[in-house]
Amino acid sequence: MNAILASTSTLHEQDYLEYLIPHLPELYKDAEEVLFIPYARPGGISHDEYTAKAAEAFSKAGIKLKGIHEFEDAVEAVKNAEGIFTGGGNTFLLVSELYRNKVMNVIKEAVKNGTPYMGTSAGTNIGGLSMQTTNDMPIVYPPSFQTLGLVPFNINPHYLDPDPGSTHKGETRETRIKEFHGLNSQPVIGLREGSWLELKDNKVTLKGKLKARLFKKDKVPFEIETGTDLTDLN
Amino acid sequence: MNAILASTSTLHEQDYLEYLIPHLPELYKDAEEVLFIPYARPGGISHDEYTAKAAEAFSKAGIKLKGIHEFEDAVEAVKNAEGIFTGGGNTFLLVSELYRNKVMNVIKEAVKNGTPYMGTSAGTNIGGLSMQTTNDMPIVYPPSFQTLGLVPFNINPHYLDPDPGSTHKGETRETRIKEFHGLNSQPVIGLREGSWLELKDNKVTLKGKLKARLFKKDKVPFEIETGTDLTDLN
Repeated sequence: MNAILASTSTLHEQDYLEYLIPHLPELYKDAEEVLFIPYARPGGISHDEYTAKAAEAFSKAGIKLKGIHEFEDAVEAVKNAEGIFTGGGNTFLLVSELYRNKVMNVIKEAVKNGTPYMGTSAGTNIGGLSMQTTNDMPIVYPPSFQTLGLVPFNINPHYLDPDPGSTHKGETRETRIKEFHGLNSQPVIGLREGSWLELKDNKVTLKGKLKARLFKKDKVPFEIETGTDLTDLN
Repeated sequence: MNAILASTSTLHEQDYLEYLIPHLPELYKDAEEVLFIPYARPGGISHDEYTAKAAEAFSKAGIKLKGIHEFEDAVEAVKNAEGIFTGGGNTFLLVSELYRNKVMNVIKEAVKNGTPYMGTSAGTNIGGLSMQTTNDMPIVYPPSFQTLGLVPFNINPHYLDPDPGSTHKGETRETRIKEFHGLNSQPVIGLREGSWLELKDNKVTLKGKLKARLFKKDKVPFEIETGTDLTDLN
């Protein structure tokens, strides 16, 4: 597999995908055109608007992008893709649309067979075993929470440390993941903004400048250093 | 209907339910014992632990509490209840368990027929038309997102205003609700911590010291004053 699963598309005071663009030529090295999956529709923008935004960023790396909604047959589009990029937005909507268009398993097979893949935010969340550690609102009811399973664990993108000065009584991210582990056993990696997972030569590695936070059922969460090999995490 | 739908169980620097206890004797005025629904299991605590915690708080108002899990027949327990209190925690788990135990519609009928009801957090979220404006993680797959519909709109508990100084790129609550309105038409009330909805004599009124934030599809969100009549909001 060749993939980048990034916590966020955009860093503070940067342009959309800015910090990821230097990595695109290597990831998509044999691709003239990459298939964009705009289903997650951040802020409710249209598939066309979202594709235009992503295509503008990809053009900075000299790579063309075409939206999956522009093809008559979504399944064929995935099968023929030289590379895939799934943008962020609402994970419930993304997963619902992937199932409705019958491409969830087709993408999984394509990526496992070597089609380069990049995800950001919701597009990264679906790289895990299930979407159950998303931060998003359930704005639509998907037929299943199972996702691509490119890595043998779950991912929490936009991981946010508890604010010790907060007076707000909503659950912290850590409490939410603890509740997840009350009912589920797979590890969860909390990817802070600026971190990503690199999938390359059957290895999964934490990349970026920051540490990540690892949550295992019935264990105290702990920090892992960038560069850590997560291939056999389970 | 007689109900209190509160944003949170606990205010900063207060004990569990402290600010709600003065309202319990009036809400549950004919009840010797109230039925507690601990299904949402905040932080993964057990039904017994959660019931003990809630019972201790209710005892300050001189009201006994018994957990629904202590009854052999959950449906009968709801039908015979003199009052109901649903505590917070994970909304996906709460809704899953309400359906699994076949009490979702039974509670709805009971409350519509006059059984006093209090919800906090997840227990309030289910008072709306659907659970789709919850903040919680989808730790379990419920058979449906439809909930009690005690009010003709959706509720977002623990409503949190955007932090203008934040560098975090995860969606704000307002963006999430905007995404909800891309696919759904019912209004959403963002209840800040310390606010609640009072359902009394077929009227729905915003209570507590704070304003609430109202979100309508394709409209700019706006503030509503405490005391506002929300009976006909749709």
